[in-house]
Amino acid sequence: MTVLRRIWTNARLATVSAKDEGLGIIENGAIASEAGRIVYVGRSAEMPSALRSQAEQIDCEGRWITPGLVDCHTHLVYAGNRAKEFELRLNGASYEEIAQNGGGIVSSVNQVRAASELDLVNQSLPRLDALISEGVTTVEIKSGYGLTNEDEAKMLRAARQISRRRAVTVRTSYLGAHTAPAIYRGRNRQFVEDVVLPGLLSAHAQGLVDAVDGFCEGIAFSPDEIRLVFAEAKRLGLPVKLHADQLSNLQGAALAAEFGALSADHLEYTDEAGVIAMANHGTVAVLLPGAFYFLRETRKPPVELFRRHGVAMALASDSNPGTSPLTSLLLTMNMGATLFGLTIEECLAGVTREAAKALGMQNQIGSLEVGKRADFAIWNIEAPSELVYRIGFNPLHRRVWNGEMTRMSGGERA
Amino acid sequence: MTVLRRIWTNARLATVSAKDEGLGIIENGAIASEAGRIVYVGRSAEMPSALRSQAEQIDCEGRWITPGLVDCHTHLVYAGNRAKEFELRLNGASYEEIAQNGGGIVSSVNQVRAASELDLVNQSLPRLDALISEGVTTVEIKSGYGLTNEDEAKMLRAARQISRRRAVTVRTSYLGAHTAPAIYRGRNRQFVEDVVLPGLLSAHAQGLVDAVDGFCEGIAFSPDEIRLVFAEAKRLGLPVKLHADQLSNLQGAALAAEFGALSADHLEYTDEAGVIAMANHGTVAVLLPGAFYFLRETRKPPVELFRRHGVAMALASDSNPGTSPLTSLLLTMNMGATLFGLTIEECLAGVTREAAKALGMQNQIGSLEVGKRADFAIWNIEAPSELVYRIGFNPLHRRVWNGEMTRMSGGERA
Ligand SMILES: [Zn+2]
Ligand SMILES: [Zn+2]
Repeated sequence: MTVLRRIWTNARLATVSAKDEGLGIIENGAIASEAGRIVYVGRSAEMPSALRSQAEQIDCEGRWITPGLVDCHTHLVYAGNRAKEFELRLNGASYEEIAQNGGGIVSSVNQVRAASELDLVNQSLPRLDALISEGVTTVEIKSGYGLTNEDEAKMLRAARQISRRRAVTVRTSYLGAHTAPAIYRGRNRQFVEDVVLPGLLSAHAQGLVDAVDGFCEGIAFSPDEIRLVFAEAKRLGLPVKLHADQLSNLQGAALAAEFGALSADHLEYTDEAGVIAMANHGTVAVLLPGAFYFLRETRKPPVELFRRHGVAMALASDSNPGTSPLTSLLLTMNMGATLFGLTIEECLAGVTREAAKALGMQNQIGSLEVGKRADFAIWNIEAPSELVYRIGFNPLHRRVWNGEMTRMSGGERA
Repeated sequence: MTVLRRIWTNARLATVSAKDEGLGIIENGAIASEAGRIVYVGRSAEMPSALRSQAEQIDCEGRWITPGLVDCHTHLVYAGNRAKEFELRLNGASYEEIAQNGGGIVSSVNQVRAASELDLVNQSLPRLDALISEGVTTVEIKSGYGLTNEDEAKMLRAARQISRRRAVTVRTSYLGAHTAPAIYRGRNRQFVEDVVLPGLLSAHAQGLVDAVDGFCEGIAFSPDEIRLVFAEAKRLGLPVKLHADQLSNLQGAALAAEFGALSADHLEYTDEAGVIAMANHGTVAVLLPGAFYFLRETRKPPVELFRRHGVAMALASDSNPGTSPLTSLLLTMNMGATLFGLTIEECLAGVTREAAKALGMQNQIGSLEVGKRADFAIWNIEAPSELVYRIGFNPLHRRVWNGEMTRMSGGERA
């Protein structure tokens, strides 16, 4: 009986482990994997020789290895796009005119409802492939454009399907409380009771829900309505997270923290009380510079407060058709640095270790450590800072998922 | 004797021709090429049947075809990068500290001087490949990091070499007046006389110069110093262009127009008099949103004035290591729309027709028209607006340069 063991040698490592200093840089490094797990990470010269026997060896020729990238906040599964709406807005159309032309979130809802599960899979795969081609090994995907029990479940099934079509880990979030459909206008609470809660129960019973999300905002759901959803999630033993304080301060971050949320996301308007609550409950701040950029927002999330109170910061693409049609986590890092002033270390930890924490997967992925899954990215770079500095350039050499080498982009297509 | 003729059928065309309305959209379109030139563009049904005989036929399966993209302002040839400087700045270092750590333009000059011509080629090709992979068929490349006769010529020779290594057209610009090296500090005029003018003469004699550029700014060269350079260019019969009014208003746009410049570039501080001068002389406004984004500038170029006075607007990457490490013309378009408010039509014309004009090549490339070179891009999109709307997504299907189909990215590597 042979054990499937692989060894990557002649590499420069950025472990991004919380146990290491800074990015956890190891020169002349090596990684060994067995059955998809990391069994050694460290200096090549110190690797136990027993590990070398009967192992497939890969010479990295001095390239850098980082943990596989984790996109911890996406709405990747949807149908159609909103390019027409973008065009109308550039031509000076008002929101009303756009709505009259069938734009806005309603258009995504209508298109998702009209699409089959297979349509959703086929339309979403190119977006996933764009992320994968840049070294992403884990991606979170939300529902939220179905807004009926069947359509929300269809979105989540499409997300599960996607994970079987590509060498990537998918985590689903049920976002029934995304927006109330037109027939529930002004009756959000009724929509929560009629649709969101039963939909959650039903999707959970089908094994489709890894976490429960909500959109807490003046234009979406109130804190009290979100409480109903989170209470049900708690009852079902599901972790929660929240779109919070993006356009105004409804104390969403504090609400999320109170429920022990994995993460609170956006956070442009979060105040110090919210930051302290997050710190006390270990809630990760997921920053989404793509939406900030695309919406031409000017109020930045309180990065200094997160630093001061020791709140972990993750970065994610927020990939969605309306406010962040972004499918590059490398560019997300550049935006995190350029627009929010995050350091190189914060950006890289933000799409690896802290993003893993935002998914509750910090014991499985997000850093190069013994016992974690052998998910990593091998790069044609001279220094990790290049991953953040360049704009619109992909230096990925190879991606490793679950200990398996995968080819860049084309190789992954079905 | 057979004529090499190709026909692309079953396509949706955006000709971007000035003769057509808007983007010049033709449904059920076809293009025919012969010996690298377009001999037919229009509705498939109306194509002369004689063209179909002895032609290689390519079924585009309903995809969109646009002109090949033109990046009309880049500093693509350089050595090393400035990621370290970016990192230091994010960590709060001052400009002085960065300079002490060997940062700033001086570091690019030192690295270019230390590099061989082949080094420059090899380091620049991956950047060119990134542009090419998104449908770029023509790219302008400037000197300006050599600042000695030999090193400026070396950069331009590297740019010429690059054009022989890839299926792409390269136009060179001599940018001897980029910055004065340390030994000429405070003696800009002396540097122009000692180095810039002789360097131009010498590089021109070697056939290395397609146009002459300068950097007119308080931190670079004064209008009077630029005049010396432009006068020499005129004497040699070379077209001129100018980095103008980026950080302050030195009336650079008007100066460029006065010399009949092909383009004035950046233009954040250009006033109405400058815009009118450009309109009178047909000088193209080349907008560079990548540098605006990367430098976190807040003052936008006067887009409304350019529209009002009928100045053509082009968009370019400004790809360079210090202020725009950007190698995506698709992303440049998104930034043009998101940051500067350009419309979809303006963005697409800005990287095709108007960019061609900014290179003085409007009779050869930049639109799908009979007699022009058969340079185009075939896209997996439903509407041209998607090329501007998406962020970090590459829908290129195939690129055609000089009538030859080229494979996406890998196929182009030597
Ligand atoms: Zn979101
Ligand atoms: Zn420039």
